[in-house]
Amino acid sequence: MKELFYNYICELQEKITNSLESIDGKATFKEDIWKRSEGGGGRTRVIEDGAVFEKGGVNISGVHGNLPKTMQTHLNVSQTSFYACGLSLVLHPKNPLAPTVHANWRYFEMYDLNGNIIDQWFGGGLDLTPYYLFEEDAIHFHQICKDCCDRHDSSFYKNYKKKCDEYFWNAHRDEARGIGGLFFDYLKPTTQMTLNQWYSFVTDVADNFLNAYLPVLNRRKELPFTKEQKDWQEIRRGRYVEFNLVHDKGTLFGLKTNGRIESILMSLPPKVQWRYDYFSQKKSQESKLMDVIKKPRNWV
Amino acid sequence: MKELFYNYICELQEKITNSLESIDGKATFKEDIWKRSEGGGGRTRVIEDGAVFEKGGVNISGVHGNLPKTMQTHLNVSQTSFYACGLSLVLHPKNPLAPTVHANWRYFEMYDLNGNIIDQWFGGGLDLTPYYLFEEDAIHFHQICKDCCDRHDSSFYKNYKKKCDEYFWNAHRDEARGIGGLFFDYLKPTTQMTLNQWYSFVTDVADNFLNAYLPVLNRRKELPFTKEQKDWQEIRRGRYVEFNLVHDKGTLFGLKTNGRIESILMSLPPKVQWRYDYFSQKKSQESKLMDVIKKPRNWV
Repeated sequence: MKELFYNYICELQEKITNSLESIDGKATFKEDIWKRSEGGGGRTRVIEDGAVFEKGGVNISGVHGNLPKTMQTHLNVSQTSFYACGLSLVLHPKNPLAPTVHANWRYFEMYDLNGNIIDQWFGGGLDLTPYYLFEEDAIHFHQICKDCCDRHDSSFYKNYKKKCDEYFWNAHRDEARGIGGLFFDYLKPTTQMTLNQWYSFVTDVADNFLNAYLPVLNRRKELPFTKEQKDWQEIRRGRYVEFNLVHDKGTLFGLKTNGRIESILMSLPPKVQWRYDYFSQKKSQESKLMDVIKKPRNWV
Repeated sequence: MKELFYNYICELQEKITNSLESIDGKATFKEDIWKRSEGGGGRTRVIEDGAVFEKGGVNISGVHGNLPKTMQTHLNVSQTSFYACGLSLVLHPKNPLAPTVHANWRYFEMYDLNGNIIDQWFGGGLDLTPYYLFEEDAIHFHQICKDCCDRHDSSFYKNYKKKCDEYFWNAHRDEARGIGGLFFDYLKPTTQMTLNQWYSFVTDVADNFLNAYLPVLNRRKELPFTKEQKDWQEIRRGRYVEFNLVHDKGTLFGLKTNGRIESILMSLPPKVQWRYDYFSQKKSQESKLMDVIKKPRNWV
């Protein structure tokens, strides 16, 4: 499974970056191959200052070795070795009317002292962070998520949509990071779902990432926008930074366990503003977004 | 002591904001008085879009009530009530050649069930975060810090300078936030120092804040600068955000215990950039700063 999934994310990275480059038309992805001293490494691809993408990264990594102490505590296991691989992406479009998108799909194996697999699971998801609310965009994105889920189990969408709203909750602001999508973790073999069936589900979701995001992006990327809308985008991006640095388990885990900092923090937006108490100023278009950020809605 | 120190920080806030307004000449401080539902409140003063200050806050608060669970764990005590007051300030000048400065002075009391004081201490300090290194500025700032310390105990400067370098360490970047200053905490009455003597020390440091910072600011605030220098400032400010959101205990404590968010996060810089792997590009003036950021130096 680890080879199967690693090969899958390699090809997916290629497919996604090719597609995004052709949409951007100006900037191309810069590639960095890196090695992890404790075992494994990754292929980071970052695009900056494009015609469409102000900044974005589509990264894969496959790492192995002894499980770091912090992760042992987190997973409640004693010393063991592990393998983990995944693809992570974050895209920050230039146009404030186009939403930021994040996605991640990962696979994890743990071994006993003889190298036998003692545990294995998939995790991941995708979620959208608009700066202005277009209901048709939210509905489209969630409809693609739901269609993927429904092909595998009728309970998945409701469950993983809820988990997404819960996970991407900026608790100190009492608001969501964005308008959600799917979030799942610890997808392990059960009597209902074999590991191969989870593989089919996760790769089905990943295969549909471009279908979920590109129609939204294409509708918004060339719309005219004002300086005030750009400011609002940069201020909302501040909340994106706050979530990633204060609450996001993946980011904090990476920062505290000697991960490759530049690959982890490629998720941070290119230009960000913090103004004092800005959000109390109610404006019509901006407050339309805030209403759904404060109270996540069902879109499909 | 709590009244004495609270009155002191009220007057100090007034003195500092008056002085900063007269230096800025364009913007004035906006004041927000807020109440904490569990007891106490504060007076937040924020300046934005000034001629000298791009953003800054000088806040006081005095809060009391039952000690939050997280703080009980942190201080290793069982349920108790507390009083805490302090002044916190962060100033982000517009000019990238002028440094950001942070300072905080605080007093804490804990009570038993009968309302008797069972513990009390002072904490705080001040530290400088330049974007370009001017050695004379670093020496001046540290000299004022040292002079204050030496008036009270010849061991203080060395000790609190070291604690400052240790505390403001951006561990995931393996670099300091800035060039340090003083940091002290849990200054409790001992056989060497009475509580009144700690009060004299802490207020001596606080009284000298303007002496430490203003000569530096005045030398730099009107120097001409380039777009590239402004970009560098905004990128380095990203590290300031990373420290405050990932490592700073005060910020995280506030965010996780229902503090007044806008008063806590007034510390975040107004405009910030994150570019991928920017720091590997060595430049002469910028790398001069990075050398002392990577390896804190003794300035006096």
